[in-house]
Amino acid sequence: MTAPIMPKSDAAELIIAARIRQGLSWSDLAERIDAPLVWTVSALLGQHPVPADKATVVCEVLGLGDGVIESLVRQPTRVADDASASDPTIYRFHEALAVYGPALKELIHEEFGDGIMSAINFKVDFARRADPDGDRVVITFDGKFLDYRW
Amino acid sequence: MTAPIMPKSDAAELIIAARIRQGLSWSDLAERIDAPLVWTVSALLGQHPVPADKATVVCEVLGLGDGVIESLVRQPTRVADDASASDPTIYRFHEALAVYGPALKELIHEEFGDGIMSAINFKVDFARRADPDGDRVVITFDGKFLDYRW
Amino acid sequence: MTAPIMPKSDAAELIIAARIRQGLSWSDLAERIDAPLVWTVSALLGQHPVPADKATVVCEVLGLGDGVIESLVRQPTRVADDASASDPTIYRFHEALAVYGPALKELIHEEFGDGIMSAINFKVDFARRADPDGDRVVITFDGKFLDYRW
Amino acid sequence: MTAPIMPKSDAAELIIAARIRQGLSWSDLAERIDAPLVWTVSALLGQHPVPADKATVVCEVLGLGDGVIESLVRQPTRVADDASASDPTIYRFHEALAVYGPALKELIHEEFGDGIMSAINFKVDFARRADPDGDRVVITFDGKFLDYRW
Amino acid sequence: MTAPIMPKSDAAELIIAARIRQGLSWSDLAERIDAPLVWTVSALLGQHPVPADKATVVCEVLGLGDGVIESLVRQPTRVADDASASDPTIYRFHEALAVYGPALKELIHEEFGDGIMSAINFKVDFARRADPDGDRVVITFDGKFLDYRW
Amino acid sequence: MTAPIMPKSDAAELIIAARIRQGLSWSDLAERIDAPLVWTVSALLGQHPVPADKATVVCEVLGLGDGVIESLVRQPTRVADDASASDPTIYRFHEALAVYGPALKELIHEEFGDGIMSAINFKVDFARRADPDGDRVVITFDGKFLDYRW
Amino acid sequence: MTAPIMPKSDAAELIIAARIRQGLSWSDLAERIDAPLVWTVSALLGQHPVPADKATVVCEVLGLGDGVIESLVRQPTRVADDASASDPTIYRFHEALAVYGPALKELIHEEFGDGIMSAINFKVDFARRADPDGDRVVITFDGKFLDYRW
Amino acid sequence: MTAPIMPKSDAAELIIAARIRQGLSWSDLAERIDAPLVWTVSALLGQHPVPADKATVVCEVLGLGDGVIESLVRQPTRVADDASASDPTIYRFHEALAVYGPALKELIHEEFGDGIMSAINFKVDFARRADPDGDRVVITFDGKFLDYRW
Amino acid sequence: MTAPIMPKSDAAELIIAARIRQGLSWSDLAERIDAPLVWTVSALLGQHPVPADKATVVCEVLGLGDGVIESLVRQPTRVADDASASDPTIYRFHEALAVYGPALKELIHEEFGDGIMSAINFKVDFARRADPDGDRVVITFDGKFLDYRW
Amino acid sequence: MTAPIMPKSDAAELIIAARIRQGLSWSDLAERIDAPLVWTVSALLGQHPVPADKATVVCEVLGLGDGVIESLVRQPTRVADDASASDPTIYRFHEALAVYGPALKELIHEEFGDGIMSAINFKVDFARRADPDGDRVVITFDGKFLDYRW
Repeated sequence: MTAPIMPKSDAAELIIAARIRQGLSWSDLAERIDAPLVWTVSALLGQHPVPADKATVVCEVLGLGDGVIESLVRQPTRVADDASASDPTIYRFHEALAVYGPALKELIHEEFGDGIMSAINFKVDFARRADPDGDRVVITFDGKFLDYRW
Repeated sequence: MTAPIMPKSDAAELIIAARIRQGLSWSDLAERIDAPLVWTVSALLGQHPVPADKATVVCEVLGLGDGVIESLVRQPTRVADDASASDPTIYRFHEALAVYGPALKELIHEEFGDGIMSAINFKVDFARRADPDGDRVVITFDGKFLDYRW
Repeated sequence: MTAPIMPKSDAAELIIAARIRQGLSWSDLAERIDAPLVWTVSALLGQHPVPADKATVVCEVLGLGDGVIESLVRQPTRVADDASASDPTIYRFHEALAVYGPALKELIHEEFGDGIMSAINFKVDFARRADPDGDRVVITFDGKFLDYRW
Repeated sequence: MTAPIMPKSDAAELIIAARIRQGLSWSDLAERIDAPLVWTVSALLGQHPVPADKATVVCEVLGLGDGVIESLVRQPTRVADDASASDPTIYRFHEALAVYGPALKELIHEEFGDGIMSAINFKVDFARRADPDGDRVVITFDGKFLDYRW
Repeated sequence: MTAPIMPKSDAAELIIAARIRQGLSWSDLAERIDAPLVWTVSALLGQHPVPADKATVVCEVLGLGDGVIESLVRQPTRVADDASASDPTIYRFHEALAVYGPALKELIHEEFGDGIMSAINFKVDFARRADPDGDRVVITFDGKFLDYRW
Repeated sequence: MTAPIMPKSDAAELIIAARIRQGLSWSDLAERIDAPLVWTVSALLGQHPVPADKATVVCEVLGLGDGVIESLVRQPTRVADDASASDPTIYRFHEALAVYGPALKELIHEEFGDGIMSAINFKVDFARRADPDGDRVVITFDGKFLDYRW
Repeated sequence: MTAPIMPKSDAAELIIAARIRQGLSWSDLAERIDAPLVWTVSALLGQHPVPADKATVVCEVLGLGDGVIESLVRQPTRVADDASASDPTIYRFHEALAVYGPALKELIHEEFGDGIMSAINFKVDFARRADPDGDRVVITFDGKFLDYRW
Repeated sequence: MTAPIMPKSDAAELIIAARIRQGLSWSDLAERIDAPLVWTVSALLGQHPVPADKATVVCEVLGLGDGVIESLVRQPTRVADDASASDPTIYRFHEALAVYGPALKELIHEEFGDGIMSAINFKVDFARRADPDGDRVVITFDGKFLDYRW
Repeated sequence: MTAPIMPKSDAAELIIAARIRQGLSWSDLAERIDAPLVWTVSALLGQHPVPADKATVVCEVLGLGDGVIESLVRQPTRVADDASASDPTIYRFHEALAVYGPALKELIHEEFGDGIMSAINFKVDFARRADPDGDRVVITFDGKFLDYRW
Repeated sequence: MTAPIMPKSDAAELIIAARIRQGLSWSDLAERIDAPLVWTVSALLGQHPVPADKATVVCEVLGLGDGVIESLVRQPTRVADDASASDPTIYRFHEALAVYGPALKELIHEEFGDGIMSAINFKVDFARRADPDGDRVVITFDGKFLDYRW
């Protein structure tokens, strides 16, 4: 009763290990809990609280115990991980923002006025697009516009 | 003949000032040079070299001199501007990457194997999507997958 | 026509100088443009675009030229100023967040669920409260709750 | 006798785990020890020394041992946790300070003269305000003004 | 009328130059304005607003113009100068705090309870103490104790 | 024989725990080893090597073992702890140095010439001074002046 | 089944220990798995996923268990290790880039136009070149040119 | 006679402007001064002192004055430019070092023993290699091995 | 056989503990292995690989096991320890470099031309020089000059 | 009379320019003012106040005006220049300290007890030592030992 709740990073490591050993894809898991793909991966890595029923299904599928369920359900603190930002696969997104971020800001203000794209009322889509010159990664950020409103 | 080339940040400030004073939108400029919208804004802000013919059109439209053309044409050094990353409109993109970046990495590897989404063979699209709950900003990153290949 | 727009930091310095020399308070300026007090100060310091009619009134009152109006109207980039965060008057707010921020996060989640207090649909109020033990500064942050919504 | 005192971060993790497992809210705990809500959460997270009687009640309610009581009672070192400042729920407060901090400084000096709002003789209030456009988080900082006095 | 107020760092440089050229000591200036020595130096370097009468006397003595007076009177933003902290004469104070700061914290809490020494209701004294083994610098920090009080 | 020496931070945690559990003050310990108060606290926290006889007395009084004695006697590496510098009780000293450090440097040079106050041939005194407006913390830094001497 | 996968840094330490104790060179290992030398070292240190058959051979040769194989096969996160960048042997490469990086950028653009040398479609060669004045280290970076292409 | 020497960054900007305006390539300049290509670019950008005769030829070719010659000849301080390290063309080299640096260190020690590749007795070669899959950038680092020698 | 090699920092702690407990000085150890004094201390602290015969002697003298020998013999990664740079005894060297480093650079170039003092073909000497005004620490850096040579 | 004193960095640039144009070495200047070589260079670069008579001689020799004399005489703030620390000639000293600093600390304590080598009562010597294997740079740090003394 007095043990602390398992850290979400530990739960994520257990989920990853079980997922690989059982040959399940992230898509398999997303389907099993009937949730969007990017949301599912992000939540199981610890970035979103997972509803109890979905957490239970995930742990049943992967053969993980109640401690993992309890960890998944807990409200996360979403700390930015500066170290992993240097991973080349993730870094390219940051580089794209360095190059195109100010342009996106100009266009948001031109189209919508003073405000932001919400990162909370927000979803991300991931897709593969076939291309004869080499297939492409297509990521869509879709967030509600919020105007500065006093 | 011995003056240095105008810095791209100075050229951008002149373009912004002339654009606002003449009531031209970024879309107007993009149409005039027949170029994609996000590319146009990014290039005029200094992140891409601008072909001489397009640079000439922009400066004619805005009434700017040859020094601006010369600056636009020059190959840029694309330095990341850490200060502007704290602007709330730009920050939300970085926050979204902090939350979803590791998930996108997992999905890229699951779908494509070991590699990255190129930020060079790459395009960005900006759109407004009407929504009864409040219109939405939709940003699409579209980059060629590059596999680690020795 | 080809001069850049005056930086907002320069406009702010001119407004401050004229305000002091004419013996006007920030409250006087806020009343003249019929705007909330904290919003007015923040906007004139460069953190919000100022509607053209209000910018015109401010510059008439303070005897400032059209260049200042043009600067005030422009969409700002809201860069965090890390240096001024060490000013003792401002630092105390950061210290309070260091001490109470995690507690506020717990309470937001307990009361509202997973999400944030918006800093965009948001207002700040400043007041003085008399107290026999020494008058008090009372700052109220009032922001719309936004729940994480996919 | 020679074991070190349990770190406050460990005590906080045990309190959080027990609180969640027993279905108690922070408000429940605050009521049981008859203390202000924000103070209670902050103190149990380790930011304030807890009086022995209150610490004893908390640990009885939650079924925690004497080691937790001893930890709660100890004088804390209040180290700023830069990592958690990137959590979106906490970050919004920092962003608000970046935007409005200099304005608040101007208004404190206009109203009170040279000095600061104390972060020691200080309290914070948390409230929910119903709003047809979406309920709002209302945070009030209330600190004694201290003038620079030699 | 539209010129910005002279920055306090510029005013300080002019005061230093005039002081040296006229062979006046800081003590001379402190006596002339009847103010404590450390306060005087600190205020003339830009860390405190200087009352108008004292600013006028300083500028008369040093032959400086009204722009310097206006600058001295203005409310400062007290930004920490990290660069000058590496000057050996200033660094020794920081080193002493690194070595003795935690001990001073323990003693403040033992003697006064939970709280701080105010840096606002605060004064600093500077003295030379003769010593056969080499004269000594004696600096006294004297601040009101403030207890954490909700 | 091959175990490493106990780290000084572990020894300090054991001393603190035993001191609190036995209800001994730092002053009590200082008296028992006949040493200055600030030196005693600082040394027991790990900032100074403790002579073997004094270390033995401390450990006898507190009921601690030989491992603690061995740790206290060892020559320390005095690493600056940047994290604890954000504790409000310690931070106020740093803030005071940010405000008054350059003034102290000016006065040291005016009084003594080019050089520094030693932080090695140096002592610190801590005192409480009664004051009807609230008691005060008085800290005295007393260091030998060292002139730059080739 | 529920244990996490061994971290790649642990696997690397085991490989290094077994390699040294058995007197095998990196070249021996590269030959045994029929892979390029630099790739082999980099992959075994954790920077590339290792195909299962090669991982199996390595662990058979070195007498390591299945846990190491599983770790080697896993997709890595390639985090930049800033600490090891200060090692003199590695630092010289960074210093060379500081001195020659901008020149290489100029030459890439002159020869190829706007774009980059890929670090993904990329290989590195290591060689020793005999020289009467002292043998030389010869490192060749060989990456596909990628042009900025919208 | 009393003017300071032109900063090397100013000289580089003048050289770049004249080079572009006259349609000369870096190779043209290298040939004119009979020097290696990478060395030439690096030296004209300010990273190496340029012998007086070569500096004179460059300035004659480009129509630049004696101030540029004097600047080129001066011994440089080779300060690392962290900002330009984020330019994508330069960043790829740093990324390659992050991925392969530790492997290169292992191989240098295996082949040569304890020591480094000199970055002083060192040369860099730049080449284009045709490849049906896309031409390649080939950079060769060639430095004398220096063993740790007491 | 599959245990990792003991980290050099652990080996150093064991050597230090055994050295102190047996009352041996660093000079004693240097004599026993017939090696220069500064080299010996540095190598035993983990900065140089130790030849197997010398490592064996050290461990025999100190009564340490084969794990320590294996650790000492291993090639080190020489990571700069920024934390210990704030120790006052070490900091004074850094301060001296801040004050005199640019002067030493000027003199190296004046005397030798463009190049560096090697830190690899390099030795350090430590001595005590008696002085009636207080004994002095004398440190000599002695490194081969390397000229920039293409 | 109201101009600020010339910054020491400007004075240094003028001294360097005049020195180079007149073909004078640093040794020439040191001889002319009868001062130690390293001290002279350091002082003229702005790290030490220069006695008025020596400053006058330097400026007469170099044909510089009174503004330079006034600047040289002024008490400096000795700010550490982190940027120039990356210059390879200066960096090697920092690298040597990273490798040998902890060893020097051990030896200072072994020989002298707890304390430091003063960087104030301190001198540096620069010499060239002929060596058939390549001449060597020999730098000697010579500082008074200061023991921690309460």
